[in-house]
Amino acid sequence: MINRRPTKKLHIGGVAVGGDAPIVVQSMANTDTRNVAATLRQIGALADVGCEIIRLAVPDAVAAAALADIVRASPLPVVADIHFDHRLALAALAAGVHGLRLNPGNIRKPEHVRAVVAAARERGVPIRIGVNAGSLPARKDKPHMGPAETAAAMVEACLAQVRLLESLDFDLIKISLKASDVPTTVAAYRRMADLVPYPFHLGITEAGTPGVGAIRSSAGLGILLYLGLGDTVRVSLTGDPREEVRVAYEILKSLGLRERGPTLISCPTCGRTEIDLLGLATAVEQHLGHIKAPIKVAVMGCVVNGPGEARDADVGVAGGAGKGAIFRRGQVVRTVPEAEILPALLREIDAAVRERETGG
Amino acid sequence: MINRRPTKKLHIGGVAVGGDAPIVVQSMANTDTRNVAATLRQIGALADVGCEIIRLAVPDAVAAAALADIVRASPLPVVADIHFDHRLALAALAAGVHGLRLNPGNIRKPEHVRAVVAAARERGVPIRIGVNAGSLPARKDKPHMGPAETAAAMVEACLAQVRLLESLDFDLIKISLKASDVPTTVAAYRRMADLVPYPFHLGITEAGTPGVGAIRSSAGLGILLYLGLGDTVRVSLTGDPREEVRVAYEILKSLGLRERGPTLISCPTCGRTEIDLLGLATAVEQHLGHIKAPIKVAVMGCVVNGPGEARDADVGVAGGAGKGAIFRRGQVVRTVPEAEILPALLREIDAAVRERETGG
Repeated sequence: MINRRPTKKLHIGGVAVGGDAPIVVQSMANTDTRNVAATLRQIGALADVGCEIIRLAVPDAVAAAALADIVRASPLPVVADIHFDHRLALAALAAGVHGLRLNPGNIRKPEHVRAVVAAARERGVPIRIGVNAGSLPARKDKPHMGPAETAAAMVEACLAQVRLLESLDFDLIKISLKASDVPTTVAAYRRMADLVPYPFHLGITEAGTPGVGAIRSSAGLGILLYLGLGDTVRVSLTGDPREEVRVAYEILKSLGLRERGPTLISCPTCGRTEIDLLGLATAVEQHLGHIKAPIKVAVMGCVVNGPGEARDADVGVAGGAGKGAIFRRGQVVRTVPEAEILPALLREIDAAVRERETGG
Repeated sequence: MINRRPTKKLHIGGVAVGGDAPIVVQSMANTDTRNVAATLRQIGALADVGCEIIRLAVPDAVAAAALADIVRASPLPVVADIHFDHRLALAALAAGVHGLRLNPGNIRKPEHVRAVVAAARERGVPIRIGVNAGSLPARKDKPHMGPAETAAAMVEACLAQVRLLESLDFDLIKISLKASDVPTTVAAYRRMADLVPYPFHLGITEAGTPGVGAIRSSAGLGILLYLGLGDTVRVSLTGDPREEVRVAYEILKSLGLRERGPTLISCPTCGRTEIDLLGLATAVEQHLGHIKAPIKVAVMGCVVNGPGEARDADVGVAGGAGKGAIFRRGQVVRTVPEAEILPALLREIDAAVRERETGG
């Protein structure tokens, strides 16, 4: 039901972004890039939870020099995040990075921009132009711009950078237009969507700590993805970047855009609930944490709505007074006393996983 | 930037829903309604975090009888959630509830429906028709309906109930069309939006445990609210219902639709971060938990982007090597050593709150 905006496909290492490629999940390491071992450890941990592209800050020449070792051992394609200094961009390209995040407008001298673009073109390395609301020069003069005006200024600033790259015959371009508030971000991407064919990297900047940040990111990215915009996403959260990857997948799963691991649905409980539903749902969620198959599990409080609501679930339980009805695909298969619900449910889940794995 | 769908305004007790009323946040108690003290305790706790309407399950005559005492002492308008038994609806109305959630189609005899509608009309009590994907009779015959087909069947089932109430000259109607997946839910509400003038109660059913459920709800409600749909919302989470209210407000705040309490933005940290940003953000978030004023606070890792990104924040900090620049509305006001960042920031926050309270 979502019609994705047609975009030019490009590749970050072996990962396709845009066109008919699945929407790609990425994150950014928060280790010191100069610490190769720590950075590779974090990249490995992120790859384990499904991260597909990793971005690294390159604040200085030592960090740029470390990239060669990181790229060589990284299980994920590496994007170098660079500001102002074209020498860092050239060093990152020489180190073999698969993508650059760099605003050519921030590099003062035209000959420096030409050198970076020539090196990127030679290696087939895409450049992401990322305009953030907070770094707009226009906003310094006009402190009270609303979302629509800010979005227009972001798009204008971004287009100037796009035209600069295009004038150098370079079109391996990705675009991001991030703000820390949802309406501005959505307005900026929508406006840009009609103007260029390049894929979009989505994100809400500075979304905050995991609890609140996940909500803002889900609302913002949910809207953009529903509108068909977005070819790769990064959820920005203050904390462990693995959480960014988990949240990104949950957003994409909720819209049917990616599949990854099990899905648990559980009812909010009410005055009709007669079993410890929260305890049950939490225990099931923990068990599902070890499962990779995309099975759907439903933990429901009442037998009246339970099986019906969770008809599409592979396995489920609907609680009643001191007992639970275990069901498969909406059909009750047996009823057990409350104390036996959890083990019975976990057995059914494991059986459903085995069936799926053996195609049974 | 959001144009809300024009809807007929109605009132649940003293709370307006629809028309030009703000989007209302509601929740459902998970206490046993027959336990008046426990239910009132939970209603009070929910009111404290901003809940504006409370729904209670009414599974039997004892629960219906308890409603009179609850309604009398409740700080929030009460909606009785009733299935099948028209006598429970009549008892709830007699007890003084301010709203009913009841599908007239589930009450078999036409004279029973007429009796309930007459009593609701006499008291000016609105009825919410709530069609959930899982309870569609059509799905029993067609187990493999996709989102669009399921949404169409939901709308058809709901419209039949709407026409039944309208045929009895009753139009104090609210509508909900919930599914546990986002695309079906969005499709159903969009389809219904053009067909009736009644306000919408939004929700994603069985969204799951707080972590994942908040993400699914934020994506789904984010899309609907952005499309201008929704007059009241309930986030369904398995767990403490206060969390439902907090998530609902964060979604509404992220779209600029409601204001409530402080907003914290914080950067995701990267290889440039040189202070303990997560520790700082967490401590600030905890402090903000005690503040009611809608101030905006920014906790940023680097001094280059910090003040610019957080230009609209009332108070902020941007970390550097072993120090932090404290800023007010994007202007750096002073720089302190790392150990003094937190106390300095909290002092500025408290000063900003006082200024706002005194209009200074």
